[in-house]
Amino acid sequence: MIRLSTSDPGFEREFTALVNARREADADVARDVRTIVASVRDEGDAALQAFTKKFDHHDLNQTGWRIEKAEWLAAHQSLSAELRDALELAAERIATYHLKQKPEDSDTVDSAGVRLGARWNAIQNAGIYIPGGRAAYPSSVLMNAIPAKVAGVERLVMVTPTPNGEVNPLVLAAAHIAGVDEIWRIGGAQAIAALAYGTGRIGAVDVITGPGNAWVAEAKRQLYGVVGIDMVAGPSEIVVVADGRNDPEWIAADLLSQAEHDPTSQSILFTDDAGFAKAVADAVDLQIGTLATAQVARASWDANGAIIVTANLMEAMPLVDRLAPEHLELACDDPQPLFDRVRHAGSVFLGRLTPEAIGDYVAGPNHVLPTGRRARFASGLSVLDFMKRTSFLQLDQGALAAIGPAAIALAEAEGLPAHAKSVASRLAGDQTETLL
Amino acid sequence: MIRLSTSDPGFEREFTALVNARREADADVARDVRTIVASVRDEGDAALQAFTKKFDHHDLNQTGWRIEKAEWLAAHQSLSAELRDALELAAERIATYHLKQKPEDSDTVDSAGVRLGARWNAIQNAGIYIPGGRAAYPSSVLMNAIPAKVAGVERLVMVTPTPNGEVNPLVLAAAHIAGVDEIWRIGGAQAIAALAYGTGRIGAVDVITGPGNAWVAEAKRQLYGVVGIDMVAGPSEIVVVADGRNDPEWIAADLLSQAEHDPTSQSILFTDDAGFAKAVADAVDLQIGTLATAQVARASWDANGAIIVTANLMEAMPLVDRLAPEHLELACDDPQPLFDRVRHAGSVFLGRLTPEAIGDYVAGPNHVLPTGRRARFASGLSVLDFMKRTSFLQLDQGALAAIGPAAIALAEAEGLPAHAKSVASRLAGDQTETLL
Repeated sequence: MIRLSTSDPGFEREFTALVNARREADADVARDVRTIVASVRDEGDAALQAFTKKFDHHDLNQTGWRIEKAEWLAAHQSLSAELRDALELAAERIATYHLKQKPEDSDTVDSAGVRLGARWNAIQNAGIYIPGGRAAYPSSVLMNAIPAKVAGVERLVMVTPTPNGEVNPLVLAAAHIAGVDEIWRIGGAQAIAALAYGTGRIGAVDVITGPGNAWVAEAKRQLYGVVGIDMVAGPSEIVVVADGRNDPEWIAADLLSQAEHDPTSQSILFTDDAGFAKAVADAVDLQIGTLATAQVARASWDANGAIIVTANLMEAMPLVDRLAPEHLELACDDPQPLFDRVRHAGSVFLGRLTPEAIGDYVAGPNHVLPTGRRARFASGLSVLDFMKRTSFLQLDQGALAAIGPAAIALAEAEGLPAHAKSVASRLAGDQTETLL
Repeated sequence: MIRLSTSDPGFEREFTALVNARREADADVARDVRTIVASVRDEGDAALQAFTKKFDHHDLNQTGWRIEKAEWLAAHQSLSAELRDALELAAERIATYHLKQKPEDSDTVDSAGVRLGARWNAIQNAGIYIPGGRAAYPSSVLMNAIPAKVAGVERLVMVTPTPNGEVNPLVLAAAHIAGVDEIWRIGGAQAIAALAYGTGRIGAVDVITGPGNAWVAEAKRQLYGVVGIDMVAGPSEIVVVADGRNDPEWIAADLLSQAEHDPTSQSILFTDDAGFAKAVADAVDLQIGTLATAQVARASWDANGAIIVTANLMEAMPLVDRLAPEHLELACDDPQPLFDRVRHAGSVFLGRLTPEAIGDYVAGPNHVLPTGRRARFASGLSVLDFMKRTSFLQLDQGALAAIGPAAIALAEAEGLPAHAKSVASRLAGDQTETLL
């Protein structure tokens, strides 16, 4: 953990280093991924079976390729009532929030007589990747599957690795609640390639979303264009802006809730109160030992944590914008003036009573958010990621007369005579009289 | 050009081959691009200067790195009145159409007392790539720059190669009209890398859009994640669905307007009238010889053209959906029933009097559209490509009591104790009484 203060003479240099620090793996997985992708494209199911044996240590012909719906249902029924209710509350709130994202079609005629519009359609087939093992989160299933179903995706395919054949029942239960249509017991770059190209058993999809390790992320990047993808995701991060009137324990828990995800996660506190800064640092040190996730949280906090003291909270805001954090908490009585200054952030949590974890699970907005300063140009996952727009035009003779000549002039200037002729011959109108 | 009929016994096999035919370069440019990108990242302007000397045959220190605004203005003033008016009409109509794409913010409180919302902001810095040489189109400048400016992009940077130092004045004039802020005389993968990473002279941007050759497309793909990009673009295509009551010359011109772009372009006609099919084929053969673009158009038509006879026009529609074409013309008296069956298409041109070329220039919708069957999952360029969304949440004690327990249950089930604690400590409410 580093401690900075905007009043330090070297602050700008040190803060710039913090902004530019790369926490993403430098490992060149691109070559391995290219090999895996090409194998699955060319050999289909045989390649899937071989890679699953190699990486997940089970034989798909024995464990089964698909996880059948009866098994999802059983997983759902075996949940405690508390957990089932929690998942269902989350699903309902996520669906409600995402329903409002559905875009409206347009269809108008302008003053020149040109009919102009746009029509949105759902993606027909979508795939979601859900990691196996430690990071097998039912909340990831809800956050990826529900926007797809709200959009109107007809066939929603989930892939998830089952290392040594072991399935996470919470993930199956969440898939049942979210309305997933198929689940395949595959993971890694090979699962992404199977979704993109299709295999004998698995039908290809049009869009792939969902979190994954470096191989999964690289496979999505390489197959971008063959299919649509959500975003290149990196390690998670939180920035907390807090005054001295917060409970240090609460803020420590918020910082640790990010740190416990992964050693590469990052937690940063901005505060205008040096005493509070120290109190939070002490609270983190105390709390960290009590966590079952202590080892991961400590690695993250030691390597990537930061506490930055500013003259006042507003001074923090341009610095926050430079970090363009995935998650931003504004923990003070009146967060609105600070929020009004935020330009680059994935999701913002306002006030003292809105811990980021609420957004991870049950609030409604998506928890799949841009990381690694990508909030400068990217948004959280939404219904729009599972839809696409078709524009359309319709001209009559009057509209063509109004705007056709300009099209001809531009086509000729660009050296494209057939473009010009396609407009000019209609403007000449020979056929109009005889046929229309 | 191939001729098919849905009544042929081998139709399904031949049509499937047409759908799956890849017209994109197989050349493995990825390695070259990786080298160029790494050089520009590490050596900045020196690498740019060297690559420009090598590929564009001029020395940036002599020709100048930037093209100054005085030169754009001069280019604009030297246009003929007809061309200037045409560009300005196009710019105005494109701006009007794209203004309607601006998304609305939301900010509501739900029945549980949770404040939920989403706020859209413009990308701060955007870059657009405009090819040099033969494919230097002022319409591309308008179609990329205007959505960015409508979105509210503050710094809009254009890069365009000037082979042998030669600039296309139409492109400069269009940049002037569209409100571009900077123009740099660079191109290829090196220009994309410069925009993504920034160099000593050129400030980095957050999003890069615009057409380019295979090197440019691959550089964008490789840098996706470092910056946002629009789409992986491939060769252009048109599908025309026409009954026998169209003028064959008009439809021939429409097919050729796509073919004249590039030898890899594709033009496909569906018609329910075998006599009309033959008449169009004959008209194409006659017209093609009259075009200044004959060589390119003939190469495209010979290699990739197709005429497909169907029993009726409606029978064509599911086949069109399988092609998911960039451009689709529905040339008949009442195109609406056909249009209602279209699910996958970039842009649709309705009726006999709406040639695709109208959409390339002056109608308003964007002409940057998904190619190569990507309309299954992608949309044309829009204002949304230059904006991003920040979601936000605010809870009070009542809202936290309503949804907090479910978050705790899920966090515990996922094995994330600090997540649970960040909610639970606030629910316990110790601080609430003392501080709030």
